[in-house]
Amino acid sequence: MAAKNAAIDEVRAAPLLVLLIFVPVVILTDMALPEAHTLLFALSILAIIPLAALLSRATEAVSSRTGDAIGGLLNATLGNLTELVISLAALQAGQYLLVKASIAGAIVTNTLFMLGGAFLLGGLKHHVQEFNRISARFQASLLFLATVAVLVPSVISSVDHTSALSQKLSLGLAIILIAVYALGMLFSLKTHRELFASAAQAEEEHHAWPIQIAVTVLVIVTLLVAFISEIFVGSVQVAAQNIGMTPAFVGFIVVALVGGAAEMTTAFSAARANRLDLSIGIALGSASQIALFVAPVLVITSYFLGPEPMSLEIWPGAVTMVLIATMAASLLSNGGRGVWYIGVLALAVYAIFGLTLFLLPPASP
Amino acid sequence: MAAKNAAIDEVRAAPLLVLLIFVPVVILTDMALPEAHTLLFALSILAIIPLAALLSRATEAVSSRTGDAIGGLLNATLGNLTELVISLAALQAGQYLLVKASIAGAIVTNTLFMLGGAFLLGGLKHHVQEFNRISARFQASLLFLATVAVLVPSVISSVDHTSALSQKLSLGLAIILIAVYALGMLFSLKTHRELFASAAQAEEEHHAWPIQIAVTVLVIVTLLVAFISEIFVGSVQVAAQNIGMTPAFVGFIVVALVGGAAEMTTAFSAARANRLDLSIGIALGSASQIALFVAPVLVITSYFLGPEPMSLEIWPGAVTMVLIATMAASLLSNGGRGVWYIGVLALAVYAIFGLTLFLLPPASP
Amino acid sequence: MAAKNAAIDEVRAAPLLVLLIFVPVVILTDMALPEAHTLLFALSILAIIPLAALLSRATEAVSSRTGDAIGGLLNATLGNLTELVISLAALQAGQYLLVKASIAGAIVTNTLFMLGGAFLLGGLKHHVQEFNRISARFQASLLFLATVAVLVPSVISSVDHTSALSQKLSLGLAIILIAVYALGMLFSLKTHRELFASAAQAEEEHHAWPIQIAVTVLVIVTLLVAFISEIFVGSVQVAAQNIGMTPAFVGFIVVALVGGAAEMTTAFSAARANRLDLSIGIALGSASQIALFVAPVLVITSYFLGPEPMSLEIWPGAVTMVLIATMAASLLSNGGRGVWYIGVLALAVYAIFGLTLFLLPPASP
Repeated sequence: MAAKNAAIDEVRAAPLLVLLIFVPVVILTDMALPEAHTLLFALSILAIIPLAALLSRATEAVSSRTGDAIGGLLNATLGNLTELVISLAALQAGQYLLVKASIAGAIVTNTLFMLGGAFLLGGLKHHVQEFNRISARFQASLLFLATVAVLVPSVISSVDHTSALSQKLSLGLAIILIAVYALGMLFSLKTHRELFASAAQAEEEHHAWPIQIAVTVLVIVTLLVAFISEIFVGSVQVAAQNIGMTPAFVGFIVVALVGGAAEMTTAFSAARANRLDLSIGIALGSASQIALFVAPVLVITSYFLGPEPMSLEIWPGAVTMVLIATMAASLLSNGGRGVWYIGVLALAVYAIFGLTLFLLPPASP
Repeated sequence: MAAKNAAIDEVRAAPLLVLLIFVPVVILTDMALPEAHTLLFALSILAIIPLAALLSRATEAVSSRTGDAIGGLLNATLGNLTELVISLAALQAGQYLLVKASIAGAIVTNTLFMLGGAFLLGGLKHHVQEFNRISARFQASLLFLATVAVLVPSVISSVDHTSALSQKLSLGLAIILIAVYALGMLFSLKTHRELFASAAQAEEEHHAWPIQIAVTVLVIVTLLVAFISEIFVGSVQVAAQNIGMTPAFVGFIVVALVGGAAEMTTAFSAARANRLDLSIGIALGSASQIALFVAPVLVITSYFLGPEPMSLEIWPGAVTMVLIATMAASLLSNGGRGVWYIGVLALAVYAIFGLTLFLLPPASP
Repeated sequence: MAAKNAAIDEVRAAPLLVLLIFVPVVILTDMALPEAHTLLFALSILAIIPLAALLSRATEAVSSRTGDAIGGLLNATLGNLTELVISLAALQAGQYLLVKASIAGAIVTNTLFMLGGAFLLGGLKHHVQEFNRISARFQASLLFLATVAVLVPSVISSVDHTSALSQKLSLGLAIILIAVYALGMLFSLKTHRELFASAAQAEEEHHAWPIQIAVTVLVIVTLLVAFISEIFVGSVQVAAQNIGMTPAFVGFIVVALVGGAAEMTTAFSAARANRLDLSIGIALGSASQIALFVAPVLVITSYFLGPEPMSLEIWPGAVTMVLIATMAASLLSNGGRGVWYIGVLALAVYAIFGLTLFLLPPASP
């Protein structure tokens, strides 16, 4: 009973969770007006945001109760669960451009928008914020290598390739990435745990939920996200057309912002609390996870779930944006100090990316 | 009277100002031999160099007399006045390739040539020069983000675009860049003035001119530069053909070197005086200003002054050169120490860029 | 006599040298079965590896006995002698794709594979390895500028160019690079010797050979490498086809690994001995030497030795891989600390490059 109350308190404390009202609304609307695509699109976004927040809280709770090793493993695997579930729904519907755009967009959004926002919000409150340069640089070089690994087929194979070879390459690549990811967990949870200490501290601040509640919430909310993602994916194409957005823009900007909403909240409040190290850890860690875990899982799943195997090749403009974003992350973390104007510049580059995608989308495949 | 003498002393002290003799020479030659394009081209370059030096001195004098806020604002706005005036003349003549080449070339010249020269000249005199790594890195990341923002239409829209959309994007982008620039002045002049302290110190070393003289010089010299720029732009195409240079080479190398001559003199003597921090501040600050202020102003002005709106898209080779130059600036400033060989390498890359542009120019649009 | 014994002890101590048995084997096989291309290909690789190790040891011995200046000069010139001799054989046979692939591949292999391996092997033995960040960063920026200089024709001239202009540019570039390389020796051997101190120390650890033996070994082994390289180059095309590899893959991965085997052994044992500074110095120094010395020498030699002049232009995928590798080297050296997982990531990127080249080779020119 006390536990239930704690969960309710949590809902009351987090303003995002008020949006949970949209969960039943979107399900009912989908039954009543299955053709109201634009409305369903907007409602499903509003419903996914609080679910993502709940999911992230439940993951944390489960992992903090199951001991260090398994807990870290869970947290590392489920940290981008929302992105993964949305992308799986898009994969099943064969909307590969949306899937690829959301992978690239999540990396860019996590670096430019999340880091930029953290620097801006933190810098408005604190004159100059110092952070641990060594650890930030280390994570930025992890991210650079992880990103480059994902981008190789796109940057190299542009010269001449056939689709069959490209798929073979993507599959081989996906296997290498998953292996590297597994070694990464060994590294961060076992052999060099102390390097990632500050990020772990964050969890302890919440009132952790009891394990039964946490697991129940995790399962139910994942199912809800999966269900609403299907409504979202079903409505996105027509809705985007109605509003004048392309699937590339929706995937790159909208899905990435929605899927990362929960982490952003955490990263931004950490920056306000003058813990820029934690913000940087969340932003760069989550982006690395997209590259090393979410992307290859989607490629491998496409063999079972999609209409045809999906390759890892994305369009050249997205490659450039991802590379620029990771270079920017390196430079920002290299500086060792945060001021609001650096945040403004990173957000401006993000806004320019959004504007460009909005006006000059890639050709649909 | 004493003030006038001070101004004359100044002229005597600065050897560049001897070139002022070419100002009447080029004007008279233009009246007598309007078709002697190659001669006019050479003379106008020789005349602009000392005017640029005077302009830079007058701007400093005006800004040091008008108090911190307005002075800084003036200095930030008029720091690249020569480049701006030359580019406006080219814009009015519809020579957009020249304009774009001079924007890209100014960024590359300010980083590779000005930084490289400062490292080489300083390093020949001092064995190893230490400089403030934190502040250099900070300015390098500002420059990276500013440059990337300007390059986005060029690097992303290459896939497919129509001219109308590209112009729309360039205009939206120009507005974002100007806003970012305004915030940057708020940042560097108001909220975080102390981070830019060393660059400001330089001004105090000169005998500042009285305000009336400074303003008069500023106005007259700007008009002279505008007038001679028109002669320059009118002769450049035929002259370049005669000498075997393309408009791209002239804009990228010649205009950039001429327009930046005054700043280079300052940056080089600072390096000789073992003040590499100041050299780096001038070089990176000026390059950022080109990206965030000169480029968008030219795009917006093209709507009023040019034969048709100008986009921010430049040819792929120029994009690559600008990106390489800003990456090099990051790496050089990252090291935290200057030695002559680093300067040689940066100048070699600059020379190779020049050689490449000379032999393999981009197709005219 | 004692000297000869020392040389024999050396052979016994270094397990690689057991492979010397393949030197007579490959020569005899070439005489007996000149059409057994796949066998000759494999045998010549096995024979070159120990010769490369001997060559590297002999170069060190000669340079340590001839005094600092000439010794350093020799070491700097002959450090990549194996790569140079193999490439010259390929050049003479007109296999320009193989030559270019081996230049690009040597830079990538020296950075990603050699650095990655050193971080991994060192990190498995030592928890966290600290290294001199300033000096590593300095060498990484040298490498970046050197690499960029070599890549300019490839990254810029892609827009429009004729073969004649491209050759002219490559020749001009080669002359600039050689001049920069000469200045680099002045810098590292004369004016700023102390910055490169740690790399020099390594030599003193071996029992240096007497000068007569060293010179004799140097000459004989170079001739042997040249002879076997001809067998290698003569067999590579048919053999590669038989095994299913392209010349690009062979040059980029196989030749680069074979040519660098000796240096890798040194870099890896230095890392195991917790001297990561030395590993980084060897890896980045050797990569810079390929760019500034081996590449231009091959271009200039092609005018005398090859069927037609060779340009410095390489295919776009190789450009990207080289740029990514040098960026990765910058980031790795920037961190200032080595852990095994960074090595895994660098090796994973290298493996992905290899997989991509294997599956999606560039079109033959």
